[in-house]
Amino acid sequence: MIGTLEVLRTLQENDVITDRPIVIVNWTNEEGSRFAPPLMGSGVWAGKLNRDWIYGRTDIHGRRFEEELKRIRYKAKVPAKKWPVHAYYEYHIEQGPVLERIGKRIGIPKGIVCVHWYDVYLEGTANQVGPTPMEGRNDALCAAAEMILKVNDLPGKMGSDTVATVGEIQNHPNSRNIIPGRVHFTVDVRSWDDALAVRAWEDLETELKAISDRRGCPIKIEETWRMKHTAFNERLIRRILKIAYRLEYPSHCMLSGAGHDACYMGQVAPTAMIFVPSIGGRSHVEVEKTKWEDCVAGANVLLHCILESALEK
Amino acid sequence: MIGTLEVLRTLQENDVITDRPIVIVNWTNEEGSRFAPPLMGSGVWAGKLNRDWIYGRTDIHGRRFEEELKRIRYKAKVPAKKWPVHAYYEYHIEQGPVLERIGKRIGIPKGIVCVHWYDVYLEGTANQVGPTPMEGRNDALCAAAEMILKVNDLPGKMGSDTVATVGEIQNHPNSRNIIPGRVHFTVDVRSWDDALAVRAWEDLETELKAISDRRGCPIKIEETWRMKHTAFNERLIRRILKIAYRLEYPSHCMLSGAGHDACYMGQVAPTAMIFVPSIGGRSHVEVEKTKWEDCVAGANVLLHCILESALEK
Repeated sequence: MIGTLEVLRTLQENDVITDRPIVIVNWTNEEGSRFAPPLMGSGVWAGKLNRDWIYGRTDIHGRRFEEELKRIRYKAKVPAKKWPVHAYYEYHIEQGPVLERIGKRIGIPKGIVCVHWYDVYLEGTANQVGPTPMEGRNDALCAAAEMILKVNDLPGKMGSDTVATVGEIQNHPNSRNIIPGRVHFTVDVRSWDDALAVRAWEDLETELKAISDRRGCPIKIEETWRMKHTAFNERLIRRILKIAYRLEYPSHCMLSGAGHDACYMGQVAPTAMIFVPSIGGRSHVEVEKTKWEDCVAGANVLLHCILESALEK
Repeated sequence: MIGTLEVLRTLQENDVITDRPIVIVNWTNEEGSRFAPPLMGSGVWAGKLNRDWIYGRTDIHGRRFEEELKRIRYKAKVPAKKWPVHAYYEYHIEQGPVLERIGKRIGIPKGIVCVHWYDVYLEGTANQVGPTPMEGRNDALCAAAEMILKVNDLPGKMGSDTVATVGEIQNHPNSRNIIPGRVHFTVDVRSWDDALAVRAWEDLETELKAISDRRGCPIKIEETWRMKHTAFNERLIRRILKIAYRLEYPSHCMLSGAGHDACYMGQVAPTAMIFVPSIGGRSHVEVEKTKWEDCVAGANVLLHCILESALEK
């Protein structure tokens, strides 16, 4: 039983000679938290994002991505350009509650849901709260509050596997005794069904505009990012399933609700992913954790998948 | 016709000898934006706020009020301690739309509404938005959105002159793809009727707790500041009314929805205020403005009020 980083050493120690070279990759800026968009490394490598545009992206302090890559010595000389890949496996924590809930150790996503990002900007009329009567106010935060609840209600109305979230909000001037005069918030909509997600958004957009009209808070909406759903390679999925079975790890076929570098890799090479359970389904928070024995199980499945692919003619 | 700052010079040039001394005061930190609470100078002078507690107040960078007073050379040696005051007049812009709407030049508030400030803290469960199903989420921002709308609906339910506002909100971690796990927002409730404002808050509190329970987002509420309504001195109000009439400025008796140093002064001395119209009813925003001729009108009323009070035996 071995861990991920020991895969290559294990092959060597066991004198395994593969027909195909094995590459382990740690993609730059998968997350996109400081520099948007996410999946920068895989996107550029796969030819789906323009390298110079990516270099020019800035953080909230206006620092350029390229300069920061240089500063931390991540900018190297080998061009980030795709070459033929026989099989791409990505090993990840589930980041959701499903595997733990049903007591399975290995998750095998059939693909990644689509991700649609929007930015909503509202204008209200800032004013001193005390002397301004309720009637005739244009409170941008009240308009945003109604909209946030509409976003939250959306999946219930659309059915299927849609999720919709407002994760970020900025309120101006954000002072206890001033009526909010300007609000910006984000909307994230995801589904396996790209068309359903677009339709959900269109319905929502109509509702947001009606709220904006009724509250006298002009709205501006930006379509920030749309990534279609990624269907993984059937042959690789079957292989993961077979190996998990052989190693006696209970497995489960599912969807990935989170974006991964496998989104871009799936567009240029046979791709699949291996998931292990997240404790309490928590992720992107400090308590994010996976049991060590689950990490080992996933690494074993990965090892055998890599071996089979690398030994294929 | 003269402006406020010329009051004293005008008296001198016209050889007016008053029976009582005249003091013009510019109170420190009326606003309370950087250092809370507001009305610090008048509150300490009137003996209603503890000086050393005020000195120890900090801004969001942790800088102490006392040190900042020293740094800008505002900390002097004369103790801020009340002495007997015969009459206190405060001249201010209306900060509301009433005078402009009804075409009057001088506003005469019968007093200042009560101001109640609350801080609401919500805990949710932060998680990656994609893989976390809608069912079972504890989204602190959705809970806050419902609560903000309840605050906005409150005055309509309570009737009378109540206003209620959420001006400030902080969302954590405030990231596009993370379910909000922690939200803080403020509530400001004002009314001429102190008991009505308290009852409004109690009703609201019950509703907020029900939302917190239903959404599984534990709530913590702090009562940050409560200032009762201030009724101004009848005699001074009648004087302002009389002088505005004599100077042929159309005037209007009203309420002040905003807090002023006159709140604390009204507790220790006969106090009244003179209002002039705010263009478009706007204030606490960059477009805040009052017509010059209105400024002059208010200053003339102030001059004659001061004269009458200073000549009284």
